[in-house]
Amino acid sequence: MCGLAATASGFVLTPSAVRPAGQQAVLGRNARSLRREGLQLRMAAKELTGIDKAKQLAGYKAVDDFVKSGMVVGLGTGSTAAFAVERVGQKLKSGELKDIICIPTSVATEKQSIDLGIPLCTLNEKSKLDVAIDGADAVDPNLALVKGGGGALLREKMVEVMAEKFICIVDDTKLCKGLGPSFALPVEITPFCHEHTLRTVAALPEVAGCTATIRMGKVSTGAKKDGDEIAVTGVPLALVSVWGTAGRRVCVCCDI
Amino acid sequence: MCGLAATASGFVLTPSAVRPAGQQAVLGRNARSLRREGLQLRMAAKELTGIDKAKQLAGYKAVDDFVKSGMVVGLGTGSTAAFAVERVGQKLKSGELKDIICIPTSVATEKQSIDLGIPLCTLNEKSKLDVAIDGADAVDPNLALVKGGGGALLREKMVEVMAEKFICIVDDTKLCKGLGPSFALPVEITPFCHEHTLRTVAALPEVAGCTATIRMGKVSTGAKKDGDEIAVTGVPLALVSVWGTAGRRVCVCCDI
Repeated sequence: MCGLAATASGFVLTPSAVRPAGQQAVLGRNARSLRREGLQLRMAAKELTGIDKAKQLAGYKAVDDFVKSGMVVGLGTGSTAAFAVERVGQKLKSGELKDIICIPTSVATEKQSIDLGIPLCTLNEKSKLDVAIDGADAVDPNLALVKGGGGALLREKMVEVMAEKFICIVDDTKLCKGLGPSFALPVEITPFCHEHTLRTVAALPEVAGCTATIRMGKVSTGAKKDGDEIAVTGVPLALVSVWGTAGRRVCVCCDI
Repeated sequence: MCGLAATASGFVLTPSAVRPAGQQAVLGRNARSLRREGLQLRMAAKELTGIDKAKQLAGYKAVDDFVKSGMVVGLGTGSTAAFAVERVGQKLKSGELKDIICIPTSVATEKQSIDLGIPLCTLNEKSKLDVAIDGADAVDPNLALVKGGGGALLREKMVEVMAEKFICIVDDTKLCKGLGPSFALPVEITPFCHEHTLRTVAALPEVAGCTATIRMGKVSTGAKKDGDEIAVTGVPLALVSVWGTAGRRVCVCCDI
């Protein structure tokens, strides 16, 4: 039910369960929130769809195969990673896993982990992770990934690059012949003059002919003011639609 | 009184007026605030010290020689750039300059410009600048610079890289035989897990043997909450002391 492939940078677990007819569109914030809430309700009610079950298989298998007691574990963000987090919580509760500590890659994952009683820390306390588990937005035949479309790009990268082993879990709707058509390329940018930076990114020769849009969302700055978490609104993820670039790698660098 | 040298990336104006006996130490936030306030008071009272006069000469000459009516002008940050801003204000008031619009590189420069009645915009409105004028923390014989120690590194770089011509103005206390000993290398980092990033920067082979410290300060995120500007406290400038590296260039890149 699950295929496992290895690259120099990690592994991709892909259960070959359900394949949808069409390509997945880039969703707006409300659609993403609704989708996340819908999944949470289905997870709680144990009424999973076919794709949910594929994601669950990948998430559970990653934890079963790669997370051992005593480890420092990076927990990814998104609908597939949520099942890995769920599994870690189950195994801690049953006592099958002990003395692990986890580093979440987003506020959403942090919240889910706290609800499940998973001990957490940050990179400030632990800079070396034994393993990190996360989903991806698209995977090409060479296991090159598009990641970060969920809005946690920087945080995911900062955490996962410190892991000795990175396990990437995807259902097979994420597999594609070449990066680009199935999912816009996320580029996290600074809030300061983000419209200018969006234009700068869109003008790069590497994405000639593509469109770039700002994803309106909230990203925590990690700071607090008057006890409230400070969030920057309306920034900072530029989604570059790289339609038509299938089969070639797209690398976006912006010298700012 | 002023020397002018050109590089591929711009110019350095250095008035050879006053040279202090010792090297300038890296100042803490309170010391910097006090120094800035002291300069503002002396500028207002027209009671300038010898070094102030050298900075004034450089700042005024840069505006006199390179700013023309109709231009889009980048305005730098710091005690030397403040004189250039002052000169732009004077020439606009006298009518010698007309139809210019300026892009400030920090909240402090924005405030000074507004006080002087200088028309402002941001990179979101104007992405191409005719000229940008700013100071530097250190200048080596090849005109390589250390910049950003005032806390506006990212914003300065984003603005000044878009200028057709970059005029760097320094008094001769900033000249050094090699970058490093006279001023710690500023590296702007993200607030998220900044302690981890500080360790990562300090562990780079390029700065082996150096110490890295966090500069505690406030940096505007450019966003507002309940009408207030949101500032992130305690971040995000890592000052890497590169003592002993005189004569060789230091380039810090951190893959996050």
